Amino acid sequence: MSGADAFADTAVAYFRDLQGRLCTAFEAFEPAARFAARPWNKPAGHRLQGGGESRLMRGAVFEKVGVNVSHVWGVLASEARGQVAGAEASDGRFVAAGISLVAHMANPYVPAMHMNLRYLSTSRAWFGGGVDLTPAFPFEEDTAAFHGALRAACEGYRADSYAQFKAWCDRYFYLPHRQEPRGVGGIFFDDLAGKDQAADFGFVRSVGEALLQVYPRIVARRKDTPFDADARDKLLYKRGRYVEFNLVYDRGTRFGFSTDADPEAYLMSLPPVVKW
Amino acid sequence: MSGADAFADTAVAYFRDLQGRLCTAFEAFEPAARFAARPWNKPAGHRLQGGGESRLMRGAVFEKVGVNVSHVWGVLASEARGQVAGAEASDGRFVAAGISLVAHMANPYVPAMHMNLRYLSTSRAWFGGGVDLTPAFPFEEDTAAFHGALRAACEGYRADSYAQFKAWCDRYFYLPHRQEPRGVGGIFFDDLAGKDQAADFGFVRSVGEALLQVYPRIVARRKDTPFDADARDKLLYKRGRYVEFNLVYDRGTRFGFSTDADPEAYLMSLPPVVKW
Repeated sequence: MSGADAFADTAVAYFRDLQGRLCTAFEAFEPAARFAARPWNKPAGHRLQGGGESRLMRGAVFEKVGVNVSHVWGVLASEARGQVAGAEASDGRFVAAGISLVAHMANPYVPAMHMNLRYLSTSRAWFGGGVDLTPAFPFEEDTAAFHGALRAACEGYRADSYAQFKAWCDRYFYLPHRQEPRGVGGIFFDDLAGKDQAADFGFVRSVGEALLQVYPRIVARRKDTPFDADARDKLLYKRGRYVEFNLVYDRGTRFGFSTDADPEAYLMSLPPVVKW
Repeated sequence: MSGADAFADTAVAYFRDLQGRLCTAFEAFEPAARFAARPWNKPAGHRLQGGGESRLMRGAVFEKVGVNVSHVWGVLASEARGQVAGAEASDGRFVAAGISLVAHMANPYVPAMHMNLRYLSTSRAWFGGGVDLTPAFPFEEDTAAFHGALRAACEGYRADSYAQFKAWCDRYFYLPHRQEPRGVGGIFFDDLAGKDQAADFGFVRSVGEALLQVYPRIVARRKDTPFDADARDKLLYKRGRYVEFNLVYDRGTRFGFSTDADPEAYLMSLPPVVKW
């Protein structure tokens, strides 16, 4: 197995295209800031091969937003194999392609947003992903719009997929030590490997497209809401919970710690300013 | 086994006394701020019994400082037993007493400081602890004073204890994913159970007393150093590494996540404001 996994190439092509369209949509809100792109490649002879492109913008509306695409392959260290389905049976060989997006917003009334879509191939191949919304001040209108878009993306895939993936999201994005959900949820799915890989991939694309449509509408609706220092403080303390979740529980982040991946890539999710 | 472990009572009495003297020493730097004390007790019937007192001050010099004493006992959940020496053999029964101190300072030229001293009893009894200094801008004079005080505290205990505990500290307070030490070190020790428990406890007290002497001198020396926004920013980014260490690697913090202890107690170490 090498990076030449035909389906990974197809997935990466979509993820790169989506990355470009997301960045364009987000830049449209910014008077001056633009994404800075950082392409990276693992040097030859490295345990991991491949590379990706991280894009980061620190703006007036999007206080910190990262949109990263990666396509890596190689052999997982033995301690990391248990974390990836099928990796024991493949002797650690894997191919992974994914897009990750985290947006932390300057205005406390605009919810933070996270999306990850990924394709993994070990001794078998599957898709995974998650999209969730984290407001400091939840608005029912935003929550309904967000979930409505995700529900629509799930339609026509599997029966009950929205209900299942929504419940999975609620379980996954939960902080047991705080007995709090991270935000107002979304969808989460993993190990998605139906008989029809093209249908699975079609679903993953629908999720990406839904997010691209709905999130800018929420940003546009809230970004000019007046706020005071207390509201901003509430946002900064809420972000502390986000950090706790990502460093303590998030599988993708913890997987990053178990590899020699670039910490700036897997820690892109950390907010720009946080209070405890 | 219950909370009535005679040595735990002795250790707690010292930790409470040290807590009071540390708080007094720190308050002496503050024009107005004072520690707020929060005593707590686990309700009867709880898996953990006992309680403690958390003291927190948010001041002008000590931007956020916590000094917590706890004395708890009970039966560890089976998933937590592997983390505590001797707890498998005691069927999870344990007594723990400790003092934890973390100081995050407003002036970027004053190093952050951490100290933990603890007594544990399971199927056997031992002491552990650690003290380390984390400057955003290291000064050789401060590092030398800090290490000199700890070296003196180690003298007369075991041969080579300073060298051993310093090396242990350097190994422990290291961020592999950043390939960076957390700070300029100090000492770290665990599972300290010599033939003479009184001698071990004497050493632990020497460490507490050394810290009480040396840290206020470092604070006094640096607290009025003029600084600009860039220096403060450097401090806030340095604090991000502190958060990464504590949430990802620190055993005490991770042990907290595996129990139903109060998150405000074991997350007291998190800095007041952080940037990534």
